[in-house]
Amino acid sequence: MELVIYYLGFCYNALVKLISILGSTGSIGTQTLEVIQKYPSKFKINGLTANSNISLLKKQISQFKPKAVALMDERSAQELQKVVKIKVYSGLEGIIKIACLKEVDTVINSVVGSIGVEPTYAAIKAKKNIALANKETLVTAGDIVMKAVKKNKVILMPIDSEHSAIFQCLNGEDIKKVRRIIITASGGPFKNHTKKQMEKVQLKDALKHPTWTMGAKITIDSATLMNKGFEVIEAHHLYDMPYEKIDVVVHPQSIIHSLVEFEDRSVMAQLGNPNMKIPIQYALTYPERLPTDIKILNLAEIGALTFFKPNLELFPCLKYAIIAGKIGGTLPAVVNAANEIAVSYFLQNKIKFLDIAKTIFKMMKKHKLIKKPTLEQVLKVDREVKQETRSYLNTKS
Amino acid sequence: MELVIYYLGFCYNALVKLISILGSTGSIGTQTLEVIQKYPSKFKINGLTANSNISLLKKQISQFKPKAVALMDERSAQELQKVVKIKVYSGLEGIIKIACLKEVDTVINSVVGSIGVEPTYAAIKAKKNIALANKETLVTAGDIVMKAVKKNKVILMPIDSEHSAIFQCLNGEDIKKVRRIIITASGGPFKNHTKKQMEKVQLKDALKHPTWTMGAKITIDSATLMNKGFEVIEAHHLYDMPYEKIDVVVHPQSIIHSLVEFEDRSVMAQLGNPNMKIPIQYALTYPERLPTDIKILNLAEIGALTFFKPNLELFPCLKYAIIAGKIGGTLPAVVNAANEIAVSYFLQNKIKFLDIAKTIFKMMKKHKLIKKPTLEQVLKVDREVKQETRSYLNTKS
Repeated sequence: MELVIYYLGFCYNALVKLISILGSTGSIGTQTLEVIQKYPSKFKINGLTANSNISLLKKQISQFKPKAVALMDERSAQELQKVVKIKVYSGLEGIIKIACLKEVDTVINSVVGSIGVEPTYAAIKAKKNIALANKETLVTAGDIVMKAVKKNKVILMPIDSEHSAIFQCLNGEDIKKVRRIIITASGGPFKNHTKKQMEKVQLKDALKHPTWTMGAKITIDSATLMNKGFEVIEAHHLYDMPYEKIDVVVHPQSIIHSLVEFEDRSVMAQLGNPNMKIPIQYALTYPERLPTDIKILNLAEIGALTFFKPNLELFPCLKYAIIAGKIGGTLPAVVNAANEIAVSYFLQNKIKFLDIAKTIFKMMKKHKLIKKPTLEQVLKVDREVKQETRSYLNTKS
Repeated sequence: MELVIYYLGFCYNALVKLISILGSTGSIGTQTLEVIQKYPSKFKINGLTANSNISLLKKQISQFKPKAVALMDERSAQELQKVVKIKVYSGLEGIIKIACLKEVDTVINSVVGSIGVEPTYAAIKAKKNIALANKETLVTAGDIVMKAVKKNKVILMPIDSEHSAIFQCLNGEDIKKVRRIIITASGGPFKNHTKKQMEKVQLKDALKHPTWTMGAKITIDSATLMNKGFEVIEAHHLYDMPYEKIDVVVHPQSIIHSLVEFEDRSVMAQLGNPNMKIPIQYALTYPERLPTDIKILNLAEIGALTFFKPNLELFPCLKYAIIAGKIGGTLPAVVNAANEIAVSYFLQNKIKFLDIAKTIFKMMKKHKLIKKPTLEQVLKVDREVKQETRSYLNTKS
């Protein structure tokens, strides 16, 4: 019953997509399941993974009937295994098992953090198509992962409003004719702050994103603009675009999700009310577009779309990420690891908002660059920098 | 030496496009020649036509070396024939000759007015691809012309920033998945006028378009928003889109040239600094994009893109055109003919700005609709309504 058709050089399963979701209890994971629930004839969930949220995962199991699941947390896995009949794997190894299930053709990776890198890589090597929400995969190991994508002839679709926008703008166009990719940034809650105001930023303020509802880690990354820096690195890898051809513009309304400028100076843009369901569904159904229940865009009602240049002095994280991307090698992994720990400390109210950037810069300066690392080396750097960052912040706080 | 390749279902001549330009001395005509001059290896001009501008046509002949030309004006044609060696045709018959030259594969119709309809139709029947700037072709005879396009399997590319934008947004997408086409309007110079101010509008004010430099007729049509009404009718025919799915939004900066909303509520837009060279060149080189020297779009510099609903009470021409489009048959030809004459009277300072709309409404009410007219009937209605409009305005003024 499985008919594979080819369209625009991309293959996809015309009848039922067989899916594993890594991180199914998170923000992107639950929204992905809502999309899948709306089109039950198009998708079959065969695997789910979570960190430790047993109660939600249990509900998802009874609703979507996967063949197996995994929990990162060993104890939670044991607990869940007692009450469900399907196999419950555990740890990173368990997550990778779910990513590589035989009865799966598409893996949605919506895990948060560098823990998501290995499952993506394993799934690619197992010839699974990838719908990627995990930023760390391309930020820390972009060269390695994109090489594997080409070698294994799988499709990697971005689940991210910006990269999905770029993909839609490029649709059918010649990538060689692109002059510039313009990534929009909401600017986060502090876009109009002065240096003085930035010094007094509280956790609760940083968690209030003006346009998007997201997980805590990415909300802080949006407030520091680190998220935008990561997106620049991802765009570089996804679209094989030199950094000089990637711009960032602050657009507080988050209506234009990104733009592509072509050689003839014609610029394509993708717009919509800010809702992750558009990029999630597009990644799952491309090249088809299916109805969604998202609020219709009404430009007259919105009135104005505004734009300004990001302030790299007030938001040094964006600068650091781009510098790391340009230098390449293991440096983006350093920025990511230091950021991941610094943000977790900020989320625990242990450090100040501006300490995030300072910590990252400290770790960047210390790092001994490996120019063409293997995945193992990247992961080792990730572990080491996280440990160093913890030590540094523990002595500091 | 001519290799015809097929790409995305559209055929185009890969080596040299053999071109006739109808209306080569006008605004679009001269800009088209500038584009062609930039890429001499891609185009060969075989035919040119003008109304009566001998001096410019003579320069174009010596520069582009067409095989034949035509002038609408009989006397001008005779005068030119004395001083050039190539054949100079005259009248509408002459224009049609140039449109149907054997050594031509693409006809650029940038004639202003309903005089452009017959040459387009003749060229389609002679299996020429069309790059269409002449609005009247689709406004007055859209059903007939699009039927001929399909029957003769030729390509009709729009030369118009709005329709070119829609075409670029649709690129490779399924037209059945379109929920809505959103055509942007600059709003013209009177977009913020009150009814009182509208009554006092002077010709010189109406000729000052805020964002686009265009010919006089289309500049007035932009001030009344009739131009936007015509574009709605054209979009209906070009993209086989019901009128209910076509919206107009005023966007004073003319940066977003139009948008397409898909079923998934994702909206694609095409942007650029207002310059007709983008749509002209795109129509000629599609699916290829070649560099232009147009100012690069800088959203941060522009700062804000604004939008509001058009006021159909203050700009009744837009309403009349859409009503005429919905009713169909010969009614759009009536609106066009009455408008063409009323605008020419306004350009001669013989009537007031608001009289344009009043005149059109008068002619619409008088008209006996032919539901499925032939081209001959459309052209007869065009001639008759123009005559009636003249009589009406002459007795009035």
